[in-house]
Amino acid sequence: MFPLFDDKLFECDIPGPTKQEIRAIVLSKMKIFPGCRILEVGTGTGAVTSDLERLGCYVISLDQNEYITDAPGRKFTRYADYIQALSPWFASRSVVFDSIFIGGSEHVEETITLAYDLIKRDGVIVINAFSLDTLTRASRALEVTFGNYDVIQVTVSKAEKLGKHRSFIARNPVFIFFTLPKLETLFLPLVFLLSVDPLEQFCPYL
Amino acid sequence: MFPLFDDKLFECDIPGPTKQEIRAIVLSKMKIFPGCRILEVGTGTGAVTSDLERLGCYVISLDQNEYITDAPGRKFTRYADYIQALSPWFASRSVVFDSIFIGGSEHVEETITLAYDLIKRDGVIVINAFSLDTLTRASRALEVTFGNYDVIQVTVSKAEKLGKHRSFIARNPVFIFFTLPKLETLFLPLVFLLSVDPLEQFCPYL
Amino acid sequence: MFPLFDDKLFECDIPGPTKQEIRAIVLSKMKIFPGCRILEVGTGTGAVTSDLERLGCYVISLDQNEYITDAPGRKFTRYADYIQALSPWFASRSVVFDSIFIGGSEHVEETITLAYDLIKRDGVIVINAFSLDTLTRASRALEVTFGNYDVIQVTVSKAEKLGKHRSFIARNPVFIFFTLPKLETLFLPLVFLLSVDPLEQFCPYL
Amino acid sequence: MFPLFDDKLFECDIPGPTKQEIRAIVLSKMKIFPGCRILEVGTGTGAVTSDLERLGCYVISLDQNEYITDAPGRKFTRYADYIQALSPWFASRSVVFDSIFIGGSEHVEETITLAYDLIKRDGVIVINAFSLDTLTRASRALEVTFGNYDVIQVTVSKAEKLGKHRSFIARNPVFIFFTLPKLETLFLPLVFLLSVDPLEQFCPYL
Repeated sequence: MFPLFDDKLFECDIPGPTKQEIRAIVLSKMKIFPGCRILEVGTGTGAVTSDLERLGCYVISLDQNEYITDAPGRKFTRYADYIQALSPWFASRSVVFDSIFIGGSEHVEETITLAYDLIKRDGVIVINAFSLDTLTRASRALEVTFGNYDVIQVTVSKAEKLGKHRSFIARNPVFIFFTLPKLETLFLPLVFLLSVDPLEQFCPYL
Repeated sequence: MFPLFDDKLFECDIPGPTKQEIRAIVLSKMKIFPGCRILEVGTGTGAVTSDLERLGCYVISLDQNEYITDAPGRKFTRYADYIQALSPWFASRSVVFDSIFIGGSEHVEETITLAYDLIKRDGVIVINAFSLDTLTRASRALEVTFGNYDVIQVTVSKAEKLGKHRSFIARNPVFIFFTLPKLETLFLPLVFLLSVDPLEQFCPYL
Repeated sequence: MFPLFDDKLFECDIPGPTKQEIRAIVLSKMKIFPGCRILEVGTGTGAVTSDLERLGCYVISLDQNEYITDAPGRKFTRYADYIQALSPWFASRSVVFDSIFIGGSEHVEETITLAYDLIKRDGVIVINAFSLDTLTRASRALEVTFGNYDVIQVTVSKAEKLGKHRSFIARNPVFIFFTLPKLETLFLPLVFLLSVDPLEQFCPYL
Repeated sequence: MFPLFDDKLFECDIPGPTKQEIRAIVLSKMKIFPGCRILEVGTGTGAVTSDLERLGCYVISLDQNEYITDAPGRKFTRYADYIQALSPWFASRSVVFDSIFIGGSEHVEETITLAYDLIKRDGVIVINAFSLDTLTRASRALEVTFGNYDVIQVTVSKAEKLGKHRSFIARNPVFIFFTLPKLETLFLPLVFLLSVDPLEQFCPYL
């Protein structure tokens, strides 16, 4: 199950991949259990897709770029569906996704509206933002559609061996948005009040 | 399975807990699969212990402090063994741990030597360092015992709502050390050379 | 001249002060020379005001809050003018400021428009943003009025002695905007092309 | 006087330059006044040297590398002395330096001992560390020679325009050590107790 896939496996011409540490945080915020359904917007190299499938999820992964056919992640996934499509044009008849991950999108607002329509009542939406522009637009769109959200900034630097010494090499900071599942918001006070075997209530899929 | 336990569940008089984002990265570096055995040095609030058990691990958790009996994590774990002991005095007859996590220790060098003796051939040791002192001592001890290691620095800030506005509130940076599993080091070139179903070779426990 | 004033000198009930490291970066971006005129919006504790006057500037400092009368910085300045006023209502008959520093304002857009009107042709405007809201609004307003700007994020953590060890204690990240002086934009290529004693062209006030 | 020299002016084959923001913090920690004497160990591109001379300092700058003769900073300085020498072999008959800046050195311990011998009683020593190795060695050497010191970590990321959007591009973190001037340590309580015109006591060189 762990460790997550190595970054080197996804190195190619496609921008990315989302680094292992960032993937770990993204996954830890989503609602993931064996057999769950995930929508991913912005496949990129397929690194997140691969980790999701390995954790037992069925993933539908969208990307508007042609390079989705060459994503290295395809080698590590067997059941995930890769669809070359613009997210605003993607539609689904019913609310079917347990979690939605937006790794990148030029149509931030429309994608968030789409995610709001397709997510289950207790699902979580996670969004990675790298540019000032996406940061701004995602925070406004989430405020409007969801009313509440959390956003963290994560900066990772890795000590790489240059010559004899290890120097800290910085990676670009990432802003990670995540919505709060309505279910958790309801149960959290209950856990404290009743304190009756919270494990069962909390993780029914264990 | 996911999301990981909420930080609020572990708030108490004991210093910590290790924040959810840091736990996510720590777990993603370790070798975890259902039924694996983990040694944890420095229980603290038991947040990491709880997440590990929920992911299917059997955890032995050591802490030299008396407060190990009151760790909130005990409410969320059923099988984990909590032992109040100084890590250098802990011994085991055989090499039995798939992964070892050192969340805090005053005897960094002795604990790393102990970890080296008790870890399986392809196991991973992860160490969290908060102080300049631990950073220095852990890097020296790992250099001596393991010869090679990686270290990253992770800084997380969270936008908290103060009045009308969200301001980024910084959390203290954490240095995370992890050793490379010998098995992975061997297989990695093979994956590239042969490229024959790397999934099977990589994650035999899936 | 240096070192800058110590943070401890400005500790009081007023939020702040802007930390020494951040003040150093702010000052290094502004156009400062003995006898220059500076407008400061958001006095706060008066730390930046004090450093500016010590570097030989004449400062007009605005703050809408009553606590401007108690700002500790008043003890360290002799010529600076402190005015309790809302920045949008402040007016000046002529373009008189060599540099403008916006340390905090609830009327970001109006303050930036005011700054644009009052700054000299080769002056620099520096803005500190702490909240996601200010970050968003300042970047939009600068795009509209100035067309171009730079923004950096600065994170400082300081190793404080806790018990026997030094642990890195994080300070909240700050976003620092600064506009490019039109003069510099013109001279920079000249420096490279002609390379005729750039020192004279560059620092006429030395 | 300000703004500091632009980073672009120092771009060349020599590693560096120390970025403007880091230079600003370094200068703000040192004891600088017109006519003061500064020792710099590790000239590099000469960016710090240039800023120091422009602020009115006389700088002696050491570097063991041959490229000291081509440092771009030479074009911007007129009085600074550049000496190609290993810092442990540099000697001076008397204690003559108001501040010492160690921008880089392979002989950290010897250089700190040298700095201790050559600094005036109320001078400040500032050290930049980029590698884990220098971090470790500098903190030990300062503990031994000076007994006390401060160390901060500074991370800067700059929003660069990539295509249509501004993305935050991280720069490698820098650790900045600085010793506390003995004079300031003595005067600080006096300022609070007497509160008699602290400006005069504090900045006799203004």
